[in-house]
Amino acid sequence: MSAHGPWGPLPLPAFLQRRAFSKTRTKGLQLDDVNPHVRNAQYAVRGELAIKSEQYRAQLHRGEGKQLPFDSVISANIGNPQQLDQQPITFFRQVASLLENPLLLEKEDVLKNSLGYKPDVIQRARKLLDDVKSVGAYSQSQGAPGIRQSVAEFIERRDGYTADPANIYLCAGASSGVNALMTVICATPQTGILVPIPQYPLYTATLSLLNAQLVPYYLDESRNWGTSVESIKTALQEAKGRGVDVRAVVVINPGNPTGGSLIAEDITAVLEMAAQEKLVVLADEVYQTNVFEGKFLSFKKCLRDLQKSKKNSDGRFDNVELASLHSISKGMIGECGHRGGYYEMVGFDPEVVAQIYKFVSIMLCAPVIGQCFVEMMVNPPREGEPSYQLYKKEYDTIYQNLHDRARALYAAFRDMEGVECQNPQGAMYLFPKVRLPRKAIDAAKKAGKSPDDFYCLEMLDATGICTVPGSGFGQEEGTFHFRTTFLAPGVDWVDRIAEFHKKFMDQHR
Amino acid sequence: MSAHGPWGPLPLPAFLQRRAFSKTRTKGLQLDDVNPHVRNAQYAVRGELAIKSEQYRAQLHRGEGKQLPFDSVISANIGNPQQLDQQPITFFRQVASLLENPLLLEKEDVLKNSLGYKPDVIQRARKLLDDVKSVGAYSQSQGAPGIRQSVAEFIERRDGYTADPANIYLCAGASSGVNALMTVICATPQTGILVPIPQYPLYTATLSLLNAQLVPYYLDESRNWGTSVESIKTALQEAKGRGVDVRAVVVINPGNPTGGSLIAEDITAVLEMAAQEKLVVLADEVYQTNVFEGKFLSFKKCLRDLQKSKKNSDGRFDNVELASLHSISKGMIGECGHRGGYYEMVGFDPEVVAQIYKFVSIMLCAPVIGQCFVEMMVNPPREGEPSYQLYKKEYDTIYQNLHDRARALYAAFRDMEGVECQNPQGAMYLFPKVRLPRKAIDAAKKAGKSPDDFYCLEMLDATGICTVPGSGFGQEEGTFHFRTTFLAPGVDWVDRIAEFHKKFMDQHR
Repeated sequence: MSAHGPWGPLPLPAFLQRRAFSKTRTKGLQLDDVNPHVRNAQYAVRGELAIKSEQYRAQLHRGEGKQLPFDSVISANIGNPQQLDQQPITFFRQVASLLENPLLLEKEDVLKNSLGYKPDVIQRARKLLDDVKSVGAYSQSQGAPGIRQSVAEFIERRDGYTADPANIYLCAGASSGVNALMTVICATPQTGILVPIPQYPLYTATLSLLNAQLVPYYLDESRNWGTSVESIKTALQEAKGRGVDVRAVVVINPGNPTGGSLIAEDITAVLEMAAQEKLVVLADEVYQTNVFEGKFLSFKKCLRDLQKSKKNSDGRFDNVELASLHSISKGMIGECGHRGGYYEMVGFDPEVVAQIYKFVSIMLCAPVIGQCFVEMMVNPPREGEPSYQLYKKEYDTIYQNLHDRARALYAAFRDMEGVECQNPQGAMYLFPKVRLPRKAIDAAKKAGKSPDDFYCLEMLDATGICTVPGSGFGQEEGTFHFRTTFLAPGVDWVDRIAEFHKKFMDQHR
Repeated sequence: MSAHGPWGPLPLPAFLQRRAFSKTRTKGLQLDDVNPHVRNAQYAVRGELAIKSEQYRAQLHRGEGKQLPFDSVISANIGNPQQLDQQPITFFRQVASLLENPLLLEKEDVLKNSLGYKPDVIQRARKLLDDVKSVGAYSQSQGAPGIRQSVAEFIERRDGYTADPANIYLCAGASSGVNALMTVICATPQTGILVPIPQYPLYTATLSLLNAQLVPYYLDESRNWGTSVESIKTALQEAKGRGVDVRAVVVINPGNPTGGSLIAEDITAVLEMAAQEKLVVLADEVYQTNVFEGKFLSFKKCLRDLQKSKKNSDGRFDNVELASLHSISKGMIGECGHRGGYYEMVGFDPEVVAQIYKFVSIMLCAPVIGQCFVEMMVNPPREGEPSYQLYKKEYDTIYQNLHDRARALYAAFRDMEGVECQNPQGAMYLFPKVRLPRKAIDAAKKAGKSPDDFYCLEMLDATGICTVPGSGFGQEEGTFHFRTTFLAPGVDWVDRIAEFHKKFMDQHR
């Protein structure tokens, strides 16, 4: 295995050296052997803070937390509504129970009279069983055709433009759709994708895994975290200058972690730029029903509007490639654990879509019961149908609670020294900016932490509230933020944050 | 964007050329832009034949198939039991219906009296809800702790050796576990993994996606597709010789597509080689209950036996790294659509396990209802419990039907001219070898198909039965096989194959 050059043995090539070293080691696989792209990937939403918060929770659960300065752990780090006591919507779960046990359908009378299953519940279960045959069977890799049809009809009702079920892919939550799309796009180590900063770390983590280039563009905090096309163009030029082959642009609307909601002008500007630069648009629209101000506007609708407009006299918008994603995990449905979602691919070359199909087929199919939840999300009970009233009440209550808590948090942040927060517009998050005193920054340095990590760790230790430091999403150099969901029940915990913040500032002033 | 050398403009680097070309094209993303590792990946189980069979099925469904020589399509290409009328096991589905709609638990009386839900069904649902809180909430990325505990207890009962829930990862079907493990292992384009040939194409497809090296080793068809360590060693040496850094060995037991079941000596020999060569062992044991001959023996048990044996006096087996996978999709449970499974990581460096954890956390968690099915699979009703009798009856009936059909197919294959088939030992497949006449091989060539593709396409066109050509799994050069499941109800369709085969042979003699 050794070779000789003119001045003695030549060093072995790196990968053979590794094997050679490993002979003196106990394990075949150690950290430095692991795929470097996995090692480089970062995913803060479930990182150090989340793990520490789980330890606190376990400690309290075992009755060993008496010396802790809090009596409950609040997971404000992750959008997981049903872990935080949000009740699932009855209609969805009644149908799901029939899908799991179709023998119940033979007892229609019992269901109706003793269990309160309305006729539309039973009817929907029959329709979905017709679509999938059994929730225990693999579906087509793209998703069950009948469900994709429902999704297409939903998109048409939402946007006023037709959608083709052949272009709709059901997936195991939007994350899995993003993974498929980005895997197909990232062809070389020079391939780049424009990603907003701050962003949901799925995007940067996936770029790391795929060994492709992150091309960050900054959102405009002063404009409620709006998308500035100038900032995208600057990032694009800079990336091109360093030889990056930029192929796509990600937009998250409503924003995660920012909670911002884009106006029509911002969306149109992104589409215009995408047309000009031949970039694929990846529109992460999983928070499309979590909108507190104005009305959600989809990229698909804006694209179709543009295609019909005078601006398209030269056909420049005809070939824009847009993939837009939706999910059952967010909105008022909040069925994260069922891992369901879809993406619509508009304007893609059919040969490219065929590669997506092959890629997703390797993992066989998205969870079929999750597919059924997608169908129910896009096609909920309608006015006049037996389950409508209860559905509407549950939906509105969840929406109202989210909005109330968002406002309570916002009000608290506005009153906190050195904290700035944008008006809550949508999604499930607030992303306040904290001006940290020099002494706090020094203390963080001493603790070997970034200042925002330090702040969030101190908050967790003092209050039991788990948030995510801004560095997990990206933020402008020298600024510090944290993300909190507004899912935890009640608003009392908001006071815990305010109290902690006051003490923290006093201590480090 | 152009540069000048001493003799005029230099050619642009390849990735910039691509951008330059694309300006004259309509789409930003065309086939030649797509990730080449995706383009190179092959996944025959859901390939051309499967798509054509779906077209036939749709044609028949629309009543337009009168001119077809068959009146039904039989999907023998994929192990999807519930698509082929296998009934789900009642206990599992009753519990699942309560998990989906926990409000039913408040009507215990109705359930018991009118719907036949036994007390252990209700008790299990309560236990699982305690484990996960809601099936609509994300669990820990590794899987719900209570469910991992059940899996550990199952492994202990099965093997007689303890298992640690901390080493158990719940996943969205075994495919997703294989993906996580291989992603972490495949560090460089020189990294190689030993994969049996024939194999389930997930392995080769994943290696393509990860841009790593397939190191094929041949199974011994003459010995019921047993694992020959000599053949593995030959493959390993050959790979090392061409600079491949071999890091792991995949074993599928019982075998897919072969239907073979390994004897203890074969398993031990693989573990001995893995210890010597410091290879990670990936044991795909998803068919562990689909065993018709003898008793399933796990890699974990064999490893622990070895570690206790005299052979381990120098501690050589102490550090073997073994990941073994199981799934709810196969066995008698057959809940493919729920995407559930687990893998146990034995002997891995904790830092490596931490990288796995981070990787799986990017996709948040495995479907939670699928996790609950894993729990029920490993912890089914026991003798004396109210649901046991029905469970046992359903389980045994499915097992018996599978075995009967396997034998009927085997008998038919043995009677067919030029066909050789190994005795069915396990899994859900037979993988007969067909000696094709020269004229058939010429006809295939003329049609631009490989001979086994041609044979399977002709079979589909003549009978409506969809199988997978041997080339989709790999086979020794110059031999031709096809894989068929024995899941389709009844045995009449077996005659369709025999009849087709006779005609095919006569035609091409």
